[in-house]
Amino acid sequence: MSVNTFGRIFRVTTWGESHGPAIGCVIDGCPPGIALTEADIQAALDRRRPGTSKFVTQRREPDAVKILSGVFEDDRTEGPRTTGTPISLMIENVDQRSKDYSDIRDKYRPGHADFTYDAKYGIRDYRGGGRSSARETAPRVAAGAVASKVISSLYGAKATIRACLVELGGIPIDRARFDWTETEKNPFWCPDAGTANKWEEALEAARKSGSSLGAVVEVVASGFPAGLGAPVYGKLDADLAFALMSINAAKSVEIGAGLEAARLTGEENADEIRMKDGAPHFLSNNAGGVLGGISTGQDIIARFAVKPTSSILAPRRTITKAGEETEIVTKGRHDPCVGIRAVPVGAAMMALVLADHALLHRGQCG
Amino acid sequence: MSVNTFGRIFRVTTWGESHGPAIGCVIDGCPPGIALTEADIQAALDRRRPGTSKFVTQRREPDAVKILSGVFEDDRTEGPRTTGTPISLMIENVDQRSKDYSDIRDKYRPGHADFTYDAKYGIRDYRGGGRSSARETAPRVAAGAVASKVISSLYGAKATIRACLVELGGIPIDRARFDWTETEKNPFWCPDAGTANKWEEALEAARKSGSSLGAVVEVVASGFPAGLGAPVYGKLDADLAFALMSINAAKSVEIGAGLEAARLTGEENADEIRMKDGAPHFLSNNAGGVLGGISTGQDIIARFAVKPTSSILAPRRTITKAGEETEIVTKGRHDPCVGIRAVPVGAAMMALVLADHALLHRGQCG
Amino acid sequence: MSVNTFGRIFRVTTWGESHGPAIGCVIDGCPPGIALTEADIQAALDRRRPGTSKFVTQRREPDAVKILSGVFEDDRTEGPRTTGTPISLMIENVDQRSKDYSDIRDKYRPGHADFTYDAKYGIRDYRGGGRSSARETAPRVAAGAVASKVISSLYGAKATIRACLVELGGIPIDRARFDWTETEKNPFWCPDAGTANKWEEALEAARKSGSSLGAVVEVVASGFPAGLGAPVYGKLDADLAFALMSINAAKSVEIGAGLEAARLTGEENADEIRMKDGAPHFLSNNAGGVLGGISTGQDIIARFAVKPTSSILAPRRTITKAGEETEIVTKGRHDPCVGIRAVPVGAAMMALVLADHALLHRGQCG
Amino acid sequence: MSVNTFGRIFRVTTWGESHGPAIGCVIDGCPPGIALTEADIQAALDRRRPGTSKFVTQRREPDAVKILSGVFEDDRTEGPRTTGTPISLMIENVDQRSKDYSDIRDKYRPGHADFTYDAKYGIRDYRGGGRSSARETAPRVAAGAVASKVISSLYGAKATIRACLVELGGIPIDRARFDWTETEKNPFWCPDAGTANKWEEALEAARKSGSSLGAVVEVVASGFPAGLGAPVYGKLDADLAFALMSINAAKSVEIGAGLEAARLTGEENADEIRMKDGAPHFLSNNAGGVLGGISTGQDIIARFAVKPTSSILAPRRTITKAGEETEIVTKGRHDPCVGIRAVPVGAAMMALVLADHALLHRGQCG
Repeated sequence: MSVNTFGRIFRVTTWGESHGPAIGCVIDGCPPGIALTEADIQAALDRRRPGTSKFVTQRREPDAVKILSGVFEDDRTEGPRTTGTPISLMIENVDQRSKDYSDIRDKYRPGHADFTYDAKYGIRDYRGGGRSSARETAPRVAAGAVASKVISSLYGAKATIRACLVELGGIPIDRARFDWTETEKNPFWCPDAGTANKWEEALEAARKSGSSLGAVVEVVASGFPAGLGAPVYGKLDADLAFALMSINAAKSVEIGAGLEAARLTGEENADEIRMKDGAPHFLSNNAGGVLGGISTGQDIIARFAVKPTSSILAPRRTITKAGEETEIVTKGRHDPCVGIRAVPVGAAMMALVLADHALLHRGQCG
Repeated sequence: MSVNTFGRIFRVTTWGESHGPAIGCVIDGCPPGIALTEADIQAALDRRRPGTSKFVTQRREPDAVKILSGVFEDDRTEGPRTTGTPISLMIENVDQRSKDYSDIRDKYRPGHADFTYDAKYGIRDYRGGGRSSARETAPRVAAGAVASKVISSLYGAKATIRACLVELGGIPIDRARFDWTETEKNPFWCPDAGTANKWEEALEAARKSGSSLGAVVEVVASGFPAGLGAPVYGKLDADLAFALMSINAAKSVEIGAGLEAARLTGEENADEIRMKDGAPHFLSNNAGGVLGGISTGQDIIARFAVKPTSSILAPRRTITKAGEETEIVTKGRHDPCVGIRAVPVGAAMMALVLADHALLHRGQCG
Repeated sequence: MSVNTFGRIFRVTTWGESHGPAIGCVIDGCPPGIALTEADIQAALDRRRPGTSKFVTQRREPDAVKILSGVFEDDRTEGPRTTGTPISLMIENVDQRSKDYSDIRDKYRPGHADFTYDAKYGIRDYRGGGRSSARETAPRVAAGAVASKVISSLYGAKATIRACLVELGGIPIDRARFDWTETEKNPFWCPDAGTANKWEEALEAARKSGSSLGAVVEVVASGFPAGLGAPVYGKLDADLAFALMSINAAKSVEIGAGLEAARLTGEENADEIRMKDGAPHFLSNNAGGVLGGISTGQDIIARFAVKPTSSILAPRRTITKAGEETEIVTKGRHDPCVGIRAVPVGAAMMALVLADHALLHRGQCG
Repeated sequence: MSVNTFGRIFRVTTWGESHGPAIGCVIDGCPPGIALTEADIQAALDRRRPGTSKFVTQRREPDAVKILSGVFEDDRTEGPRTTGTPISLMIENVDQRSKDYSDIRDKYRPGHADFTYDAKYGIRDYRGGGRSSARETAPRVAAGAVASKVISSLYGAKATIRACLVELGGIPIDRARFDWTETEKNPFWCPDAGTANKWEEALEAARKSGSSLGAVVEVVASGFPAGLGAPVYGKLDADLAFALMSINAAKSVEIGAGLEAARLTGEENADEIRMKDGAPHFLSNNAGGVLGGISTGQDIIARFAVKPTSSILAPRRTITKAGEETEIVTKGRHDPCVGIRAVPVGAAMMALVLADHALLHRGQCG
């Protein structure tokens, strides 16, 4: 794993800044023969696209993906198929409005990477956050769509990955009312209609006051076999922790019972096992579907907390590049809660982790 | 990164099972010319050694480390020095008592990796957990000691990494009484003497009843420069998440304010910046010393939750390898709270991450 | 190193097929602050471009490179500068004439990868060789141009990499007349004007008869310091062997005296050392500038043999995908000696190897 | 691939110096369930062991290998089996005689890595060449033995890897008399009894005069399927070039017709294809079994040239570490032709490459 590449055998390298000509990624190691069209990937991208409600940034990008390589079609392939060679995906940046960002050229926005990029590189594309922009997550979602096709080719339609918000602005969902179908019916990917209403109220208030709120995303993979993952430095949960913490603004990752597991006794925490329909059946899932770094066959469950958007209208104290004390107000088009758009990104990262481990497992264990 | 190797340029590959002849690691990429003796490493190992109190397993291992390569001494080197070639470390297993584990050969212990190893590999060294034993963390601590020497050679004595327990059995420390010197005075690495007493009571009760408790470890790196880390898939916090989640029994990782960051508003969460003594000075540290995946120069703060020990005396329902329903009682010598021994392991993993990023930064940015 | 990525810290991932929309690469790990424009890269690409003489394919591609990310310019950067983030380069394919290749859809061309791609992937973009087209070397040359900028930033203008043909159609150059300036004066990169004339005659005869010839390329890096490379699996010469053998149609790689070294005695082969101007000075260079995998400070010298172009007009016996015996004549626009165009590719690969090792060395050894 | 690790999915990390306590390697990614004993590995090691004739160094090392991890045996496993976890192998150094090497502490031996190690690291274990000793090839041979077991488990006994010397001191074998069974009957791995006699004479003369000779090793893998390898930076031939050039004293690598391919015309070089027994059948093998980086199913053929031993009794001019001009005579026990002992090492490296690609292919392509 290099610093802009994710994965061991199904490898994704992303590139691009918010305000350059384009962003994209190269996927290396995708198996051959998988049906793949731009429309397959576009459908996933459309789910994370800005501009779809007042709670996400009004920057309007069509985010139209182009497949530049790795797919071939002739009359014998029944539509475009992957060839096993690198799949290059590109999304052109079209709505950039560079002028909006002229103010942050010299001032470091608190909570942003402005200061640290300058400290590391001595140079920084300050327009829209450059490489640290949430726009970098678009190629991840595109790559995740390809990973999902790989997963379906291996495990069929029963293997699914879904994500939702389970907390926003400190308000948790009511687990008793959890319903995946609700997530498509509100602008928050909220699985509980009642809580969605409360979130709308809280977020509207934050938005109006120029503030922002944090959130917690939950990602669940179902229908995957036992045996994916590896010991020590290839643990499925460690890879998920890396993958989810690599998402912009993420500050924590939990697997299964997560932090609460540390508050249980050994008896409470142990997921007991019985047989059901001839197969092992766990009576609970505090483990989140992973034991010793390897999948148990249960749902694989991970959560990550997203801090409140750092770009806010309230003035904050900061310094300039030259070391002068000043204040900054971050204008422009920003999401009052970046956690919302992190939901499809979290699902994409889970897909990347599982596609990679599925192929790695097939390589080592047949 | 392969599945038993950690790091990009300072790379550690660990090997070994609990009940094989030995365990160890190979460190590749260590800079040359660094003073290093077995005693340096032994000191770190002694801090995680079992058998030092009634709250850690009574298995008695001297855990004597041997340096098999990569270090050279003659009359011009002023003591043994690293040569820049691979450093091979070995710790022989001496107190194995294989008979203790004969019962778990066929039964899957809930909360353990028994079931998943069999699902993945079809074969399993069941003695003492084999490769998934906490014993695998000994080589990590040994490697961490070498990483610490690298760090000192780069940043001097001011760069320190410390770790402690901040919660045990659901009882948090009192942050107002936090004192690093206390961590050496009780068997829990507790930085708050008052809370240590409460933990002792709770853990003694758990131990007597054959139960176990979870804990939360905090790791703090101080004195490191801004600029370590990398964007996207080389983020310092993502690497820390991987490193800490790869520790046995870890179920969550947090950076800085962590999960609580999701409950703050944008104004509350933003760490404002002023100048102090001619250098940037942050007025708070919700970020945990990392912005955009790169260090800010503040303390780097990470926490991870450790589930309660899965090996407990209370009988638990499970199945056999053959698919028959049964019960299991895990006898043998076990820690009532594995979180205690995870403290030096967490510090070691932080050292590995920072040594690797320090060298990677020097490589790319000079 | 993955299967489409080259390098450890300066990493290049190439993508693209001969007849897709575009080809390109992503460079990860380039240091920040290096002046870089599209014109810098274009100059290198123009040196390998087809259509520049009757001895290279008449396919006319402008091969215009676009920098899609990783470079930033404002009024403080004195022209565009690398930012330390991934540099994405793209070259659109414009002169494709897919119809030329319809015949090879079902027949396997001897000496080509048609058969093996089908054996491996079960699917193949047969248009123009797809991923195995020599067109894939364009992104290598582009990446090599960036690597050269890195090298200059580290070692100044004295560090140069040059390449030439030293043999064509079995006719070697006369070493006594070796003159680098000649390489720019003939269409063969031949350093010896007299031999160039002989090559022209031989190649013209081959071209007219629908045949093709092989060649040997020599690459020489001068002005690099001692100490680049690493023992065992990071040897400079092993990396060069990989890099040069990865070039299309390469069949051998030699370092320094190469194969002839095996015909010398120990006394003849040993490069003796004296002091000159206060620095170590080798009296010969059979080693080719590499001892124990690490550079000596002498010229680094490598050669690779390129087989004759496999696409020839003479009919050859082969089979179809369905396993029927047949014959094939490869029409279309082809180079009678692909070795000519391999010259700038060889230089580019040397640049990639040395840039990577220079940064790796700085990382490990400071 | 890091600098002391070879392979992508079947990964070998070697460690150790000539005169440290031990040398060894860690194999990560070996499939589970493969029968493996120390005797399996010892048999391979015994083939490269010094001291078996007057033409190899008289240093007497039992080279007894120990398996420290990754193998498990109980009454259900029918002998020891790999578990899928890292296999750690160790060979203790027993016959070191450090005093022999005291003279080379300050003088750089021409043709050796003494100068370059000092240039790179500033420190060097000069005893017996330290890390650059040919002793480092013992762990490679041990790892190659494990790779061979993996290959047998995948392709059965028909997949074989053999190696021999095809040239020594400039004297080539007579290809018409090539007979693999002869290689076991002389101390040179010579497949042609007549030439073996000539070599003995030439080498005896060189040995007596304190000189040394070079050699060329050929490695042939038979019975492997088409489809192993990958395009561009995972080419089977590029990986072989890396693997063989990484062997001590190697100066060239050729695949199939190698350098001679550059002297053929396109018609001569093209390996035509017919059907035979219902399968593709190549009428020649100039390609050496690899087209476009992927195996054709024919024999995979590689050669590498080994320079004459650099440690010779004839005095050579050199300098000291302090930059003073001097002379050196390398006493001690040395092989007059290190190419002989390189034969089993070459076969081992071919096994490592093929085992890795076999598993990688299974991972990506099923």
